Amino acid sequence: MKIGCLQFKPELFNVQKNINRIKELTAGKEFDLLVMPELANSGYLFSSIDELESSAEEIPGGEFSKALSETAKAHDAYIVSGICERSAGRYFNSAVLVSPNGTIKTYRKTHLFLEEKKWFSPGDTGLNVFEISSKKFGNVTIGIMICFDWIFPESARTLALKGAQIICHPSNLVLQYCQRAMFTRAIENRVFTITANRTGSEVNGGKELRFTGESVIVDPKGNYLHRAPESNDECFIIDIDPSEALDKNVTGMNNIFEDRRVELYNK
Amino acid sequence: MKIGCLQFKPELFNVQKNINRIKELTAGKEFDLLVMPELANSGYLFSSIDELESSAEEIPGGEFSKALSETAKAHDAYIVSGICERSAGRYFNSAVLVSPNGTIKTYRKTHLFLEEKKWFSPGDTGLNVFEISSKKFGNVTIGIMICFDWIFPESARTLALKGAQIICHPSNLVLQYCQRAMFTRAIENRVFTITANRTGSEVNGGKELRFTGESVIVDPKGNYLHRAPESNDECFIIDIDPSEALDKNVTGMNNIFEDRRVELYNK
Repeated sequence: MKIGCLQFKPELFNVQKNINRIKELTAGKEFDLLVMPELANSGYLFSSIDELESSAEEIPGGEFSKALSETAKAHDAYIVSGICERSAGRYFNSAVLVSPNGTIKTYRKTHLFLEEKKWFSPGDTGLNVFEISSKKFGNVTIGIMICFDWIFPESARTLALKGAQIICHPSNLVLQYCQRAMFTRAIENRVFTITANRTGSEVNGGKELRFTGESVIVDPKGNYLHRAPESNDECFIIDIDPSEALDKNVTGMNNIFEDRRVELYNK
Repeated sequence: MKIGCLQFKPELFNVQKNINRIKELTAGKEFDLLVMPELANSGYLFSSIDELESSAEEIPGGEFSKALSETAKAHDAYIVSGICERSAGRYFNSAVLVSPNGTIKTYRKTHLFLEEKKWFSPGDTGLNVFEISSKKFGNVTIGIMICFDWIFPESARTLALKGAQIICHPSNLVLQYCQRAMFTRAIENRVFTITANRTGSEVNGGKELRFTGESVIVDPKGNYLHRAPESNDECFIIDIDPSEALDKNVTGMNNIFEDRRVELYNK
């Protein structure tokens, strides 16, 4: 199965330019599942509701999800991308899972970071998994979490307990803790993780943010299969066997899920 | 508050020699809380119940816990150490918390690793925290987990949710994943962690194990305050402010505990 991460610099409030850049970076690439950064349609650093309104879209129907669907169809592949979502007068920091046959599923970020709390409603979808399938790779279960969700071990754990073999993780990381910690998320759950981070910086409303790139893909044994550069855009693809994530045995006598002693844990 | 880890090579089944080595390594050291490796009285690689019986002890009353109590009293300090425990015909891979006034509390390892399942009963104490206090550092809450407990995020999480500021982590690590992952355990819970690992190798019953040293102390922001060498014995002490672990704010708008959305997590 060919999985990958697309790392680029979304331009603030310029949805069409971001669509074009995604098409450029994916052109000629073969993949089955590609993960893109958080808020890939809109950029990140809002300073007003008007700005949010200008780049948010309804799902389905908006131009960004339509463009992703075209790309998914053209590549006969699944795409997970962060997206600025508008729904019934509210805004969500969401991710879409777009399939080659045109269906779209949505995850809304559970744990909002800093000023996202000013702009977005907390996610109301829960941490869910999705089945994806193809003649090329069979049936695979994936989970989605967005950026800051990573710091709560319950996010990845919940997805893994629900059966996720690959955790897709659209991100706009401003620090580099997460890239180091995804090693832990992968081994403690024996899953693949794909953290697609963005590059570049944004200046708006008197504030500036720099994003840290270094998108990472980690396998269930904690090996870094890829670490992208800090500032370059890229579309990186690698071949994996997703069934490796079904094996929760860490030794001949230890199954990482069966060994859990749930009655002793605080929730 | 002076916290530390003692890294050494317990000799298999030689309790008296291990006591002597601990006394040598701690001589002249000032500390308030010192953590020692897993099974520090007995060594690790058992091949028969007779061997286990020869070095296991009842708590309190056994020679190892008595010696630790003397050391704790002499240093006016608390000690957490791994210990091979016998209780009513069963054996536990335990840790004791020994106080300067002579009281002893016990934690029994929750998640047994590999052949430990042949020798030890699963811990029945739960993952609990303990208050320690002194005129020197005031009141501090500590938690204890042992070695393989680390890979289950619920272990450290449960201790932190119960109020642990410092997680004491006696270990006999044969791989080096844990030392890297303790960074994640510290930042996701905003606690100090003290992983006291052992050095050396053991040969018994046709098997050999090599232990990886590199005991680590990590602060609530994920900084490695110490990483011991791979093979040398040492008693390392460092001054910390344990109140740093009471602050769960990771940004001005994010409290790592209050931001949890427990209703969305699978246990």
